[in-house]
Amino acid sequence: MTGKKVESHKDLKVFSGRAHPELAEQVARELGIELVPTTARDFANGEIFIRFGESVRGSDCFVIQSHAQPLNKWLMEQLIMIDALKRGSAKRITAILPFYPYARQDKKHRGREPISARLVADLLTAAGADRIVSVDLHTDQIQGFFDGPVDHMHAMPILTDYIKSKYSLDNLVVVSPDAGRVKTAEKWANTLGDAPMAFVHKTRDIDAANQVVSNRVVGEVEGKDCVLLDDMIDTGGTIAGAVGVLKDAGARSVVIACTHGVFSDPARERLSTCGAEEIITTDTLPQSTEGWKNLTVLSIAPLLARTIHEIFENGSVTTLFEGQA
Amino acid sequence: MTGKKVESHKDLKVFSGRAHPELAEQVARELGIELVPTTARDFANGEIFIRFGESVRGSDCFVIQSHAQPLNKWLMEQLIMIDALKRGSAKRITAILPFYPYARQDKKHRGREPISARLVADLLTAAGADRIVSVDLHTDQIQGFFDGPVDHMHAMPILTDYIKSKYSLDNLVVVSPDAGRVKTAEKWANTLGDAPMAFVHKTRDIDAANQVVSNRVVGEVEGKDCVLLDDMIDTGGTIAGAVGVLKDAGARSVVIACTHGVFSDPARERLSTCGAEEIITTDTLPQSTEGWKNLTVLSIAPLLARTIHEIFENGSVTTLFEGQA
Amino acid sequence: MTGKKVESHKDLKVFSGRAHPELAEQVARELGIELVPTTARDFANGEIFIRFGESVRGSDCFVIQSHAQPLNKWLMEQLIMIDALKRGSAKRITAILPFYPYARQDKKHRGREPISARLVADLLTAAGADRIVSVDLHTDQIQGFFDGPVDHMHAMPILTDYIKSKYSLDNLVVVSPDAGRVKTAEKWANTLGDAPMAFVHKTRDIDAANQVVSNRVVGEVEGKDCVLLDDMIDTGGTIAGAVGVLKDAGARSVVIACTHGVFSDPARERLSTCGAEEIITTDTLPQSTEGWKNLTVLSIAPLLARTIHEIFENGSVTTLFEGQA
Amino acid sequence: MTGKKVESHKDLKVFSGRAHPELAEQVARELGIELVPTTARDFANGEIFIRFGESVRGSDCFVIQSHAQPLNKWLMEQLIMIDALKRGSAKRITAILPFYPYARQDKKHRGREPISARLVADLLTAAGADRIVSVDLHTDQIQGFFDGPVDHMHAMPILTDYIKSKYSLDNLVVVSPDAGRVKTAEKWANTLGDAPMAFVHKTRDIDAANQVVSNRVVGEVEGKDCVLLDDMIDTGGTIAGAVGVLKDAGARSVVIACTHGVFSDPARERLSTCGAEEIITTDTLPQSTEGWKNLTVLSIAPLLARTIHEIFENGSVTTLFEGQA
Amino acid sequence: MTGKKVESHKDLKVFSGRAHPELAEQVARELGIELVPTTARDFANGEIFIRFGESVRGSDCFVIQSHAQPLNKWLMEQLIMIDALKRGSAKRITAILPFYPYARQDKKHRGREPISARLVADLLTAAGADRIVSVDLHTDQIQGFFDGPVDHMHAMPILTDYIKSKYSLDNLVVVSPDAGRVKTAEKWANTLGDAPMAFVHKTRDIDAANQVVSNRVVGEVEGKDCVLLDDMIDTGGTIAGAVGVLKDAGARSVVIACTHGVFSDPARERLSTCGAEEIITTDTLPQSTEGWKNLTVLSIAPLLARTIHEIFENGSVTTLFEGQA
Amino acid sequence: MTGKKVESHKDLKVFSGRAHPELAEQVARELGIELVPTTARDFANGEIFIRFGESVRGSDCFVIQSHAQPLNKWLMEQLIMIDALKRGSAKRITAILPFYPYARQDKKHRGREPISARLVADLLTAAGADRIVSVDLHTDQIQGFFDGPVDHMHAMPILTDYIKSKYSLDNLVVVSPDAGRVKTAEKWANTLGDAPMAFVHKTRDIDAANQVVSNRVVGEVEGKDCVLLDDMIDTGGTIAGAVGVLKDAGARSVVIACTHGVFSDPARERLSTCGAEEIITTDTLPQSTEGWKNLTVLSIAPLLARTIHEIFENGSVTTLFEGQA
Repeated sequence: MTGKKVESHKDLKVFSGRAHPELAEQVARELGIELVPTTARDFANGEIFIRFGESVRGSDCFVIQSHAQPLNKWLMEQLIMIDALKRGSAKRITAILPFYPYARQDKKHRGREPISARLVADLLTAAGADRIVSVDLHTDQIQGFFDGPVDHMHAMPILTDYIKSKYSLDNLVVVSPDAGRVKTAEKWANTLGDAPMAFVHKTRDIDAANQVVSNRVVGEVEGKDCVLLDDMIDTGGTIAGAVGVLKDAGARSVVIACTHGVFSDPARERLSTCGAEEIITTDTLPQSTEGWKNLTVLSIAPLLARTIHEIFENGSVTTLFEGQA
Repeated sequence: MTGKKVESHKDLKVFSGRAHPELAEQVARELGIELVPTTARDFANGEIFIRFGESVRGSDCFVIQSHAQPLNKWLMEQLIMIDALKRGSAKRITAILPFYPYARQDKKHRGREPISARLVADLLTAAGADRIVSVDLHTDQIQGFFDGPVDHMHAMPILTDYIKSKYSLDNLVVVSPDAGRVKTAEKWANTLGDAPMAFVHKTRDIDAANQVVSNRVVGEVEGKDCVLLDDMIDTGGTIAGAVGVLKDAGARSVVIACTHGVFSDPARERLSTCGAEEIITTDTLPQSTEGWKNLTVLSIAPLLARTIHEIFENGSVTTLFEGQA
Repeated sequence: MTGKKVESHKDLKVFSGRAHPELAEQVARELGIELVPTTARDFANGEIFIRFGESVRGSDCFVIQSHAQPLNKWLMEQLIMIDALKRGSAKRITAILPFYPYARQDKKHRGREPISARLVADLLTAAGADRIVSVDLHTDQIQGFFDGPVDHMHAMPILTDYIKSKYSLDNLVVVSPDAGRVKTAEKWANTLGDAPMAFVHKTRDIDAANQVVSNRVVGEVEGKDCVLLDDMIDTGGTIAGAVGVLKDAGARSVVIACTHGVFSDPARERLSTCGAEEIITTDTLPQSTEGWKNLTVLSIAPLLARTIHEIFENGSVTTLFEGQA
Repeated sequence: MTGKKVESHKDLKVFSGRAHPELAEQVARELGIELVPTTARDFANGEIFIRFGESVRGSDCFVIQSHAQPLNKWLMEQLIMIDALKRGSAKRITAILPFYPYARQDKKHRGREPISARLVADLLTAAGADRIVSVDLHTDQIQGFFDGPVDHMHAMPILTDYIKSKYSLDNLVVVSPDAGRVKTAEKWANTLGDAPMAFVHKTRDIDAANQVVSNRVVGEVEGKDCVLLDDMIDTGGTIAGAVGVLKDAGARSVVIACTHGVFSDPARERLSTCGAEEIITTDTLPQSTEGWKNLTVLSIAPLLARTIHEIFENGSVTTLFEGQA
Repeated sequence: MTGKKVESHKDLKVFSGRAHPELAEQVARELGIELVPTTARDFANGEIFIRFGESVRGSDCFVIQSHAQPLNKWLMEQLIMIDALKRGSAKRITAILPFYPYARQDKKHRGREPISARLVADLLTAAGADRIVSVDLHTDQIQGFFDGPVDHMHAMPILTDYIKSKYSLDNLVVVSPDAGRVKTAEKWANTLGDAPMAFVHKTRDIDAANQVVSNRVVGEVEGKDCVLLDDMIDTGGTIAGAVGVLKDAGARSVVIACTHGVFSDPARERLSTCGAEEIITTDTLPQSTEGWKNLTVLSIAPLLARTIHEIFENGSVTTLFEGQA
Repeated sequence: MTGKKVESHKDLKVFSGRAHPELAEQVARELGIELVPTTARDFANGEIFIRFGESVRGSDCFVIQSHAQPLNKWLMEQLIMIDALKRGSAKRITAILPFYPYARQDKKHRGREPISARLVADLLTAAGADRIVSVDLHTDQIQGFFDGPVDHMHAMPILTDYIKSKYSLDNLVVVSPDAGRVKTAEKWANTLGDAPMAFVHKTRDIDAANQVVSNRVVGEVEGKDCVLLDDMIDTGGTIAGAVGVLKDAGARSVVIACTHGVFSDPARERLSTCGAEEIITTDTLPQSTEGWKNLTVLSIAPLLARTIHEIFENGSVTTLFEGQA
């Protein structure tokens, strides 16, 4: 006889970067497994060192990292983890980026700018990632930046289910904070009982050239309960301004919903004082409700766990997010 | 002495596919050169044969092709031309696609779809293209699908200059035909004297589930002269419907403006009878005004010629389209 | 426990482009399976849209497309299907091209020509194909154009078995229609009872410079029953001419055999009236016997089905075609 | 001022491997330059060491190597030289392989064979070669194995010019030694005054199954002066056998012409005693006339020098070999 | 006429990341040019934004970044700058990393570790870098991690020239702080008048298993003036310990010399109090002498400027560092 | 039903090049399998031909080759075997190079040299190798030259176990033959009972400039039993010289240990007469004790067999060599 024949099997292994270990741990719990023990530490000069505590040879590996501050460090950590898996003979490497970093830099506005969202995809490829899982990409087209499968999950059902359970849909209007999110608002409106829509239109200040001021609501909001949505909230300036504009336009109440709560300073203060009834977000980034008046954090972990499970089992991820399509 | 040293120079050469030779010829005229003589013919079974009439060794080559019907054939012809240039030792190959084919397929809506706009970029890379020039991509993110420089030119100044020269801006309103183009409409509104905006909102028919009907105008159009814009018009159904909705909402007049006039059947009939005063487009695709009542075709050739000139001379393409930014 | 371990399995899935669904269906029947339901349609401007009706995640996928007219469209459709499989996480993608398009353009005759057969291989790679299956490549070297496994199947046994079953080998002579197919004719001669050989020699017309006329038979054909073979017949000019030359040289009868019946106009008329007793071909391209006097179509589907089966089962494809070696 | 602007120039540099320095030196002489001084030596265990004697930064570099015995060593040496040029910042690297090694292994005959001719192209790419120059490839399709420009030069004009200058064309017949070279023979026949053709047909020995014997001439050679051609002669068995067959068939004289005189043992003895009047070859491989009765060696150096000159100057290589097309 | 021919020229442009602008400015001054104006800023969530103030089309671009703390941020900034240059049609992009980050992670010690130094090279390639310039790589082999030219400059001449100018060589001994740098010390010893050598040998503590203690000097240092060298000093623990061991062994004085002064806490305190007479380093990383007792910083800028000049002019970089070889 | 589902399995297949078949056979015996029958022969001009005797489709393939003289030939043979496996649809290809060729050329010493050790990795990648197994690389960094998993095995335990079993450790000192191996010697010293260390220091001859003479022992060797180690011994000059220096310095005895016994002429004579008590090596290269006085060859086959087993079974290779870490 030449050669030897054995049945083959697949091993599922989940790894966590240091940015948001609670999320990864909850994902693992949902899957009924434990995270692979990983040594990760910084050298004195900031270089990151990684070593895995068990063999990854032949395994189907998922590397979860949240891209919170300091974002470049956590991205580099994830790249190093992927390189270690590649050199350790992992069979397949899936990078999970609940919040895709640099997603806003998805095109050149002028002639000498980077397309950093594409660069992130290229760096993941260079490190050795075979596939990507992400949630609510800033634009759908980012899927096409990666030359391989991208499972693009949507948090909208999580957010709208919560809204439906807590608020009456009768008086709701779905509001986009600017012209660029009107299409997304249309999807929310369809999901929330075919609610009416509105958006805030940015016009220039007549007295100050090139000065953009957000000051006009297009659509009817008077006496309405507004759901103001966005994919991410960073410093909260635009969204807090929009709340003000809506209130000025006679809105009865405003609830803010976003997938990615970046909440850079002074977002907490702005959003706590802007007059919104509630701010709803998810834990694609590490969140704390401390110091917030009305912050609600919904967990993305069950969605990620089901996605990992379906990928590992070769099931259909589409069913996970097609409900709202 | 070992070796030999000579001054180097750069040769500019422009090639045309067979889809729209008039455009390429006009571009060449603007550049003060002639197109490289090219043998292109179809074998009986549909295979395309290409041979260039002069050496391309060491040249800076630009391959212009319009992606009109039969679009897959013209794409394949351009790929074959690029392959021939690569094997003929061209120094640099720029693919010019005034209308980027498959641009609408720039994301996966469901789990088992292609991202054909990315595929087009990959095929151009595989054939040997070093860079791409295109006009008014369906979404800006397509720039990031190609791993190299993409010069993304805008036809808006050509279209808005024409509108400014012919129509009064006083009573204008800029209208997006759906929720997805509101952001672009905002740019046009800024360029056309900070005109007000509106858009057509698609809602479901109450009686027929899942039936989308375009029937509601958001924004004021009564008594207004509407500029209804889109990046491309295919069969004209959406846009003709939008004209009707605007008229019903009391619009005084409607002018349609789009960069890419695909005009598949029955676009000509629809647009000729929909009540629009004028349909303005460009020649990114071959156009004929025959059989049209009110079609105006503006030429994109000077823009392409200046772009080629700047690339060849290492100048700044940005200045060509930053006026409106 | 970290991780989860499951037995792994392989899923076989077969997909068909729209060029020749009957062939794919017959292949599926031979395999005892059904084709994966696929939505494929043309947009009004000619762009193709594809969506698969079930998950392809982790599957071993085979994409069958015939490259008949309009060939560039069907090639593009196959590339889009492959892209969709790649993005849908197929485990392995095999492109099946029973008739490899652009196979005649496998070298540069002059300095500024493409090598389109290599380009096709590169496009398949760019789209995401891991391997290729084809039948009777125009030249064997095309295998080397693809950087991966190519299963090159041969239809000769199907054709020669039929000839043996129908004709007596006693008076046979195997004829190549030109100098380039003499080597292939030698293989046929070996298979058909070590039959003698001949070929048609193209010489220049003395009176018209550079005019090639096919007019001389090398080898003995007088009183013989000729089997005139070729890998593909396009418009049939060469082959019909060869029949005439053979008849003039005293051949008793001529049977034509070819793998790929492209049969572009006016092949049907030419071959029906050229005096050949029978034209034998296969269904690597869609065929109809309608309007033909003597066309026989043998099916390639069992060969493709066995090949798919062997690839899926990791069996040896070699045995399928080594009989005649 | 930001930046600095200088006129650019191109430097031509030619390098020689150790397999056949005389050829490279003659090429350099034709170009009016000297070879770049190169340290090349073997370590005791057979590893090759290379160092160039001057900077190659920014130069247009041509690496000439002949692939004579020990062929694998000389191939490896050329790869190492190319790697050194890549790391030394050469601007462009052209590999010149007058005799392309492994050219006969250009396809798989069975299922588990390499395509070594493609592998050679891949290795050149991996080392850093941008382009290839070769002479009389075993099959034209090898051009398509390299993903970049291949300048495929032809020695036929050199060989046929010599034949025309020395022999009368009146009684000539061009003979292919087997079925696979009939097409090439046709080109020679066209060039040599539309001479008639013949070829040697290999049939099986009736008594010994699977035993191939070359024993039948197809075409008229009685009383003729035969030009027996091949692209390469290795041990000379086939070609010497063909001379015998031709003589037996009544040929008046036989001249052998081949581009690549590999002449492995016992070629010299066989060819010196086979009855051929003259053996004509070129110096694509190192040759010595010592011990030969009738060997004539024509130099390929002027052809290579002109090719290098045209590539460096961006001229058309096509003109160098289109005379005979 | 088809095409247009112009003389070509080369543009040198130098860019600086934000980690150490003084170094880049000094390099530009040495070159007699100014840095290209660059907008670089952080978004609130830590994402970096880059835009260049002038066209880079066709230019020969050099991107200088120092990899000080926060190192992952500065690396990401350099990658984004390179991506912007690639998309802005730069002709050639050279990444200058005076201190190559992650250089110590150049191999796997165990089975599941990354090779982060290779990963850095891969990320630079993915972003679009054509070549790399670095100074005193931790190991020479890192050159081979990048698939292209690496100009590896050496600071030793700068350091040894300073030592020669300030100290007498008569009583010098060159000391390596551990077994791994003995070979480098040998080069220094050769340069510093064939000085004698010594090194510190790490042995295990007999009482505490696996505890490494640096405590034995191999070689004669009693009454000697020691030059203790290293490629980089991070927290200074090893090197300060070595000073103590040398003093204990009777050394008259100790001078510390290193190329890369990382000086993470508590390096400054350790080195200021360890008893060394002087600490000599370079500005490959930003340095301040504030708070130091005896720190001398020599500038690497002239070396980088000469290297850029030679690369741009296609000169020989080798001559810049071969003096000491 | 669409598709077909079957359990998958893995096939282990081991192949041997012709350089050292005994080693591969012993590895196969350890694994309880037989080598795949392989036809390998040289054409008359030195080209290598390979064909495997059974299907490799879907198998996990290991190609063992020893890189002894003629090293370039055996490297090329291994590349051809890998290409054949790739084209034969092997599932995974592991190249086993017990002695990694060109390992000493792992960096550029000057500006125009290759990095041949990286080139070897690139050639293996180009041919189709997915992973590499090697033993005692000249420098650990060579792992980073390959863009994929490298299993770097260590022979030290085999060598030190033998030494422990035969010699008393009481009077041992571990000696490095030059400054570059001191770090490795430190590891050996730790393994051999924390033995003391020494090394031979090369200094210049005062009278003959640039003449390197190895003549000084650093560390105490008088009356000691020395273990002189190296990773490879080529002609044996350095190591034999070191024995002399040690003897002159009063060493009682010297045992030489090295992993790779290249033993090019005149190594055998030098080492047999240098005064060493025993020369211990392994069979990473083919060895014969004939003509040697004191050569001991330890087999590496069990180590390779266990490594193959662990890779095939997705086990941990790390455990095989971590004992000594």
